[in-house]
Amino acid sequence: MTHPSRTPPSVPCVFVGDAPVDDDIDTVLAAGRGLAYGDGVFETMRAVGGVIPWWSAHRERLRRGAARLGIAMPSDAALDAALRDLLHAHSDAVIKLVLTRGSGGRGYAPPRDVPPVWLVSASPLPPAPRSGGLVLRWCDLRLAAQPALAGIKHCNRLEQVLARVEWSDDGIDEGLMRDADGDVVCATAANVFVLRDGRWWTPPIDRCGVAGVCRAWALPALDATEHRLTPDDVLSAQAVVLCNAARGILPVARLGDHAWSPHPAVGEALRRLADAHPAFPVIDRGSPWA
Amino acid sequence: MTHPSRTPPSVPCVFVGDAPVDDDIDTVLAAGRGLAYGDGVFETMRAVGGVIPWWSAHRERLRRGAARLGIAMPSDAALDAALRDLLHAHSDAVIKLVLTRGSGGRGYAPPRDVPPVWLVSASPLPPAPRSGGLVLRWCDLRLAAQPALAGIKHCNRLEQVLARVEWSDDGIDEGLMRDADGDVVCATAANVFVLRDGRWWTPPIDRCGVAGVCRAWALPALDATEHRLTPDDVLSAQAVVLCNAARGILPVARLGDHAWSPHPAVGEALRRLADAHPAFPVIDRGSPWA
Repeated sequence: MTHPSRTPPSVPCVFVGDAPVDDDIDTVLAAGRGLAYGDGVFETMRAVGGVIPWWSAHRERLRRGAARLGIAMPSDAALDAALRDLLHAHSDAVIKLVLTRGSGGRGYAPPRDVPPVWLVSASPLPPAPRSGGLVLRWCDLRLAAQPALAGIKHCNRLEQVLARVEWSDDGIDEGLMRDADGDVVCATAANVFVLRDGRWWTPPIDRCGVAGVCRAWALPALDATEHRLTPDDVLSAQAVVLCNAARGILPVARLGDHAWSPHPAVGEALRRLADAHPAFPVIDRGSPWA
Repeated sequence: MTHPSRTPPSVPCVFVGDAPVDDDIDTVLAAGRGLAYGDGVFETMRAVGGVIPWWSAHRERLRRGAARLGIAMPSDAALDAALRDLLHAHSDAVIKLVLTRGSGGRGYAPPRDVPPVWLVSASPLPPAPRSGGLVLRWCDLRLAAQPALAGIKHCNRLEQVLARVEWSDDGIDEGLMRDADGDVVCATAANVFVLRDGRWWTPPIDRCGVAGVCRAWALPALDATEHRLTPDDVLSAQAVVLCNAARGILPVARLGDHAWSPHPAVGEALRRLADAHPAFPVIDRGSPWA
């Protein structure tokens, strides 16, 4: 069982360079490029028992994203100290880290030698997944191909917002997104894996989509491979799962009119994740998929 | 002459719904969807003599962008009051208005019935344009085709940021951007018009790019038409100008190795703009283009 808390997200702690900011936070944020242009990257991480088991993988993806955009990284010591303080108060939570390019909201040219502005905050754990498996839909909005931004978890997320706005039915858990060619890329907030001929496939993330930390774990752990996936490849798969670092692996029960029955490979994937990450024990599932 | 001031941008004034916010601005911004996802739209406007001559056009574009994204608009009275106060202190300036979807930084689904968060701020006028005409380059980064976002001035601007980061040579004023098909779309912060056979052409903004307020003025005022433009169409044009609402029409002198001499149609365009907008008198140009 997950334990969704009713407490609201914590007030984000704000840092400039390596130093926490206490005064003029409003100016730092209001005049910042994060707000002006989505000029930043972020991580959404699962904390359990006061630690973030996949922190090193998140930090490396953050570093890759920052390098792609040319944003300076805070020091490891500053990141560690900020997370330590946050985890002390929020030991089992979803931890969000946003790293922006810092000040400069007029003109796309970044000012030189401006320290990055970054924030950490904690949110309650998400509700436990539907025990019978997720219910998905197809999103109408197509992801644009932008190789320069593909893979990194940048803060330009209007495509995901618009896709998520397509439905308000609480009976739908997630939506699958396609690119302009019609190939399946991901869900709005998760990567997708499909089982075909007993092997796990996931779409490449070279034109659009986010290279998720749970996806990066799953590729070798499940001996999965990257393949472009058509909608028919998904619908004719033996099993479909979504995954992200906040919720682990989530079996899919339905996509539109199509339904999947539990498959042993899904149970095996859940067990491997349980061995790898203490926030995702199989017993939590309480579902036929385990 | 423009009068670039050395004063820094004003501290943005922040509003929630129709009300100014004085307390907890940091929380409003740090936990907001503007910062989290670039979930908003903005306007960059030229104030002259304490008024924004094109305010009604900016407000209509803001309204169209907000409608496309499903973001609530503040009331006209609240917008007018906020701008009136700002213009009182900054009568000749570049005024920026950012309208975000408001709170909710965890999860792409927007919370229901949350008021928008918006900001207004003033920046000094930009430096006077190079009197001999702008010097341009080609940007390597290609704009992705996303019809759902094309035309509106949304806050997902990483493509423009990455394109602008491609050069740091102060001798280059702007960069022309192409889409994935190689067609010319715009500059990083301006629309582009080219003169061919004595007629002005500008690219359509149906797949990517921003439908600028100065562009919207120029289409009928210059009897211009929308055409897809190849790089060769630009290089073989009789004249090229950029335009935006902050700086008006800017003649282009060079693009890479190619140079243009002053053309009477450019002077005529500058005179028409001068008649339409008091911030852009022809006499300000002091250039052979006028």
